[in-house]
Amino acid sequence: MTTSFPMNAGDGPYSYFKNSHLQREVLDNSKEMVRDAITRKLDIKKIMLSSSNTLCLADFGCSIGPNTFIAMQHVVQSLKEKYHNTNILEFEVFFNDHVTNDFNTLFRSVPIDRSYYAFGVPGTFHGKLFPSRSIHFAHCSTAIHWLSKCPEELLDEKSPAWNKGLIHYVGTSNVEVLNAYVAQFEKDMEMFLDARAEEIVEGGMMVIISPQSSECLVKFFGSSLMDLVSEGKIDESLVNSFNLPIYFPSLEDMAKAVEKNDYFSIEIIELTYPKSKLVDEADAKTLIINLRAVLEVLFVNHFGSEIAEEAFARTILKSDEISTWMKTNYQKACQLFVALKRK
Amino acid sequence: MTTSFPMNAGDGPYSYFKNSHLQREVLDNSKEMVRDAITRKLDIKKIMLSSSNTLCLADFGCSIGPNTFIAMQHVVQSLKEKYHNTNILEFEVFFNDHVTNDFNTLFRSVPIDRSYYAFGVPGTFHGKLFPSRSIHFAHCSTAIHWLSKCPEELLDEKSPAWNKGLIHYVGTSNVEVLNAYVAQFEKDMEMFLDARAEEIVEGGMMVIISPQSSECLVKFFGSSLMDLVSEGKIDESLVNSFNLPIYFPSLEDMAKAVEKNDYFSIEIIELTYPKSKLVDEADAKTLIINLRAVLEVLFVNHFGSEIAEEAFARTILKSDEISTWMKTNYQKACQLFVALKRK
Repeated sequence: MTTSFPMNAGDGPYSYFKNSHLQREVLDNSKEMVRDAITRKLDIKKIMLSSSNTLCLADFGCSIGPNTFIAMQHVVQSLKEKYHNTNILEFEVFFNDHVTNDFNTLFRSVPIDRSYYAFGVPGTFHGKLFPSRSIHFAHCSTAIHWLSKCPEELLDEKSPAWNKGLIHYVGTSNVEVLNAYVAQFEKDMEMFLDARAEEIVEGGMMVIISPQSSECLVKFFGSSLMDLVSEGKIDESLVNSFNLPIYFPSLEDMAKAVEKNDYFSIEIIELTYPKSKLVDEADAKTLIINLRAVLEVLFVNHFGSEIAEEAFARTILKSDEISTWMKTNYQKACQLFVALKRK
Repeated sequence: MTTSFPMNAGDGPYSYFKNSHLQREVLDNSKEMVRDAITRKLDIKKIMLSSSNTLCLADFGCSIGPNTFIAMQHVVQSLKEKYHNTNILEFEVFFNDHVTNDFNTLFRSVPIDRSYYAFGVPGTFHGKLFPSRSIHFAHCSTAIHWLSKCPEELLDEKSPAWNKGLIHYVGTSNVEVLNAYVAQFEKDMEMFLDARAEEIVEGGMMVIISPQSSECLVKFFGSSLMDLVSEGKIDESLVNSFNLPIYFPSLEDMAKAVEKNDYFSIEIIELTYPKSKLVDEADAKTLIINLRAVLEVLFVNHFGSEIAEEAFARTILKSDEISTWMKTNYQKACQLFVALKRK
């Protein structure tokens, strides 16, 4: 069974609901590309053949909101613009995430004035979640980088991929560590694409958006943990036995996975270098709280709430250092956009 | 906007999840009737015309579980038995309840070894929740008795339907009170049937199961509240301004509503008098806790948690009296079963 790594639930100060600005930026940056993919690449007459007058959309890894509502409204709007005879069209939008996702908060904030029927879909996107050929348009933003689990060799002292003193591949000079992450991503992507290949109708499309900009920030979380090790507050083995189950795929990784699957054609694949407001203002604190909303459950489960709290507090203390680092390094921040068509 | 009255969330000692035995009994009692309705009355070839190979089922007012899973598994099984070429069939099951329902608990207990795809549908069943002609089989058990709101005239001192000193129509000698409840039920049922008439495919079916056995128990909750009034612990106006938004329809009420709607044919309508294990054993405490799981949110919202707690504790103290009363009065306990077909 796949492990799940839920975002912070509810709508409290450290909730994902209130702290997903970074993910919102990623969405905003790809808005026109999504519209463009629909306008130029989608053969709506072909996909309507498999449908009555209902188009089924799914957001894989939707989390808690509000970003997913913004994304889905945009897709619905773009589809309406493409298909002029909209009076007879109805839309179903399926919001998918792990069973452990806070669907209560999600459902309580589904827009009232929406122009679609809304459903929740609990379960991992590494498996099939819908009947065969039932989805017309799939969307997946800032989600595909979540691995189904941490690669096991990272935890094995005897393996060349043992990730001593670090919590991620970022910051390592050991290529075996990176390879272990890549191998896990390939396995997961194979499951993801196999499932979508069954679910999506012939001619249907899928858009995948994956940021690569926030990965380096996790280095600072790792260094806060190692500070606690050097002060004797936690044992190093606790850090060695923790690795973030996150891999940010390159353009080549993604292309390779799609080609291996063979059920999808790549319509658009592009790296973009959007300007980030958060990074422009070098707003390290916002970014750190954003990452806390994403990683807190993982940290607390492994280190306990006291150490996790201490690690987050210490990372906030590094915000000046992080701001400086961001100004230099975020020039190369980029995000990957992929539009696929089911052959 | 419709008001919602959620069952107790989570899986704690007073949760609906752990205290829905009465609703389970109602389901068990109608199990064979559901199978029979599918076997004898459903023209599966006709409804398959509107579908690829996927049958869409919905449970309206599913609450938190586990009853809804038992009901839906039974419907899926009955449909499979009816349709022999099951290899090509896929099932979608939509679990519907108010946005305030605890979907997190529901999703966490969806059976892993199910033979259907599971979705949550947040929203009131008094409105349209699905695209037109998209549902093949609808199910609604121990849910239709929830009104969209309390009839307003019950709270109006100047109305002949003012329900002074009581919290429900049960126990009143004022026919205007009953009439106000009936009128609200008629309005709500009109909305319910209008919505389902749009959603259900031609030839599709809907089964409605409504118990009439637990209604009298609420009298005891009311009397506990009036005890608190006579002891000066709460003001009578607080009781006068509270009425349960629940009406248990008679066979005639239901038949009248369906005939008025005109989109459904009544295939089966029947009152049954099943034996209740709980009542046989005159297990008043279980029933009271069961009702607490259902009514607690309503009570707490109106009276505050302290008075609500006190009222529940006092009702438990009446359990001997309730047991005696049950032995005499539950002879006439009955439940209504209706199978409708979309014309």
